[in-house]
Amino acid sequence: MAHSYSSTVPVMPVNLSAPDPANLRPVAGVELGIASAGIKKPGRRDVLVITLPADSEVVGVFTQNRFCAAPVTICKEHLHQESGIRALVVNTGNANAGTGEDGLRRARETCAAVAENLNIKPEQVLPFSTGVILEPLPHDKIVAALPAALADLKADNWATAAEAIMTTDIVAKATSRKAALNGVEYNVTGIAKGSGMIHPNMATMLSFVATDAPVSCEALEAMLRHAVNKSFNCITVDGDTSTNDSCILIATGAITAPVIMDSADSRFDSLQSVVTEVMIELAKAIVRDGEGATKFMEIRVEGGEDEAECKQIAYAIGRSPLVKTAFFASDPNLGRILAAIGYAGIADLDVNRLRLWLGNVLVAENGGRAASYREEEGARVMAAPEINVRVDLARGNSVATVWTCDFSYDYVKINAEYRS
Amino acid sequence: MAHSYSSTVPVMPVNLSAPDPANLRPVAGVELGIASAGIKKPGRRDVLVITLPADSEVVGVFTQNRFCAAPVTICKEHLHQESGIRALVVNTGNANAGTGEDGLRRARETCAAVAENLNIKPEQVLPFSTGVILEPLPHDKIVAALPAALADLKADNWATAAEAIMTTDIVAKATSRKAALNGVEYNVTGIAKGSGMIHPNMATMLSFVATDAPVSCEALEAMLRHAVNKSFNCITVDGDTSTNDSCILIATGAITAPVIMDSADSRFDSLQSVVTEVMIELAKAIVRDGEGATKFMEIRVEGGEDEAECKQIAYAIGRSPLVKTAFFASDPNLGRILAAIGYAGIADLDVNRLRLWLGNVLVAENGGRAASYREEEGARVMAAPEINVRVDLARGNSVATVWTCDFSYDYVKINAEYRS
Repeated sequence: MAHSYSSTVPVMPVNLSAPDPANLRPVAGVELGIASAGIKKPGRRDVLVITLPADSEVVGVFTQNRFCAAPVTICKEHLHQESGIRALVVNTGNANAGTGEDGLRRARETCAAVAENLNIKPEQVLPFSTGVILEPLPHDKIVAALPAALADLKADNWATAAEAIMTTDIVAKATSRKAALNGVEYNVTGIAKGSGMIHPNMATMLSFVATDAPVSCEALEAMLRHAVNKSFNCITVDGDTSTNDSCILIATGAITAPVIMDSADSRFDSLQSVVTEVMIELAKAIVRDGEGATKFMEIRVEGGEDEAECKQIAYAIGRSPLVKTAFFASDPNLGRILAAIGYAGIADLDVNRLRLWLGNVLVAENGGRAASYREEEGARVMAAPEINVRVDLARGNSVATVWTCDFSYDYVKINAEYRS
Repeated sequence: MAHSYSSTVPVMPVNLSAPDPANLRPVAGVELGIASAGIKKPGRRDVLVITLPADSEVVGVFTQNRFCAAPVTICKEHLHQESGIRALVVNTGNANAGTGEDGLRRARETCAAVAENLNIKPEQVLPFSTGVILEPLPHDKIVAALPAALADLKADNWATAAEAIMTTDIVAKATSRKAALNGVEYNVTGIAKGSGMIHPNMATMLSFVATDAPVSCEALEAMLRHAVNKSFNCITVDGDTSTNDSCILIATGAITAPVIMDSADSRFDSLQSVVTEVMIELAKAIVRDGEGATKFMEIRVEGGEDEAECKQIAYAIGRSPLVKTAFFASDPNLGRILAAIGYAGIADLDVNRLRLWLGNVLVAENGGRAASYREEEGARVMAAPEINVRVDLARGNSVATVWTCDFSYDYVKINAEYRS
């Protein structure tokens, strides 16, 4: 087929630039080292090792995809062991997914090599991989690069680490906050990679967030679930989910203080808020750098009976290829948004009661276009690179927000031509 | 944004041409009349009236979208009345959706005008609309065109009727079969329109299928459910569903014989098979003419515990933008198909047991790429305009098939630039 395509502007993330290393706060106890293993491209920094002090707490959430990658399986195993996690090893260029028993063996051997170098046990190492799937992991190259990565270990390496885990990402994603808890100042710093919800070829969303506050495993687990539910579980680029998605939250406790055991501790909520802020910023950064994205959309659904139905409707809007192509075209195509609300699966939804806004412009009510609506006003909102969509279901008090990007020629180009 | 795009080949449906009127068998008792009302484009034949003899049985299935259009609401009302349906009135150019109470009034007035012309009751008329949504239906124009449509009524007008209901369709969709039941020959003829699962702007899938066999309302209802489940409920272009989707099955009984009361009648299965064949052909035609389609894919999932899980996995593959862009690019991207299977939502799926074929090439088994697989063979299958994907889940005996098309630059173009 003689289809041709040209994009006369470079593809750029929506209002997102690379992090300034000076703004990334070291987390006491965490050191990061980067090396070039030559996994896919010679000279590319493609291996990251993160080391943690003894007694750090580490918790994670992982993809629910049944085709989960070998490193995901091993992470889950190792997180269930009694020995505390002391190191993470991450490679880009190969996802070690769809690789069966042989993939598990290669991931285990990578962990064993890290353990040997650090004089810890293999089950104290968590492995992560991202990149091409269905190809054998060249773990020998990773093992050979470990001494260089360990020699590079330092506390202020977060920005370089964020670069080392990129795949189709255009810019690195990292952010940092301080948390003042009972007069003690702690740090929360995180990195992430990902540019679609899934790239099985150059796979995955990965995120690593650490704090030096002292937090029990149970409290950390609760914070992670809360933060992920408000951040990474609120984004969609193409609706697909990956084989390797992993989000890790670490508390080193290196700044000593009484341990935050549970949510009864007054410091719990404050720290949870900061962790959540960090993850929301990273999650939004993934959408801003979504494949082919030219627009960033926040879809807020309020007035629902529960958060689940709000999220269901927000995702129906945010996943619809018709809505996403309309946003690409800056077309205030109300019909597509209303239709997506209609098929979201809320059986008893009364469409005559809901109201819909684009930015601050009321566009639909009483089952159709608002009488006051003028298309020029909708078009003005749609022309901006950041667009807010708000729906009031008028049947309850719950709210959910989802972030998504538009669907452009470049999305098709990136995904159709990726391997050629 | 200075995105530019050019397609150097005309957009053409995949292996689909307009029906030959000579192959469309009249259905005894059914007459079709077409007229130009000037709803959207002057001179365009945009109004279709279908008349039926007294004692015809008529059944329908409709969109489950909560934003259903006014004509859908009225169809459901009229089908619940005791008076038999005697006429259908269809317009293109305006969907009468998202129009609230005023839309219902305009649809009712259209029915009343048809009834007055034919000397029947308004509730004996079913209205259908397709086209722009959120605009008032210009029902006065439709009413003014009715005398011309009625003057045009004839039994061999199926091909022109198929053209009159098109919106973004590139070619008209119609097909015909004969059914020999106990030595008597009956006719089954149907038309359809639609080119995405949804086009809220130029909205909808519509299909009208008629037979002259005598069938009870209950038996006809059972046949319709069966046939739709095997046809229109097995296709996806973009995963969106419309505000106006309607599928109507008519039995005039004009070729007299004892009425087929239920499935105990030996003729029931034969007629149901023929109706199902007609609907499958029309459903596939919609996919072949899917917006921007360059490839037609049949996705068959077998070895499931039940049909529902097979369909769930087939739809996960068929809806994935990543899979669909890979098919557009003729890229045998196994990882994307495996990942879609993995996130289809079957919690206890053992991915190490399933096998995946592209055409007759075994591409994946044992949780990863098949040892025998060579990418050239996958690429050869992907180069064809029609591609079969087969998955064996190896956990039961159920099967489901879904038809879909690829996702091309033209899909984005059509949907991004539609209103401009």
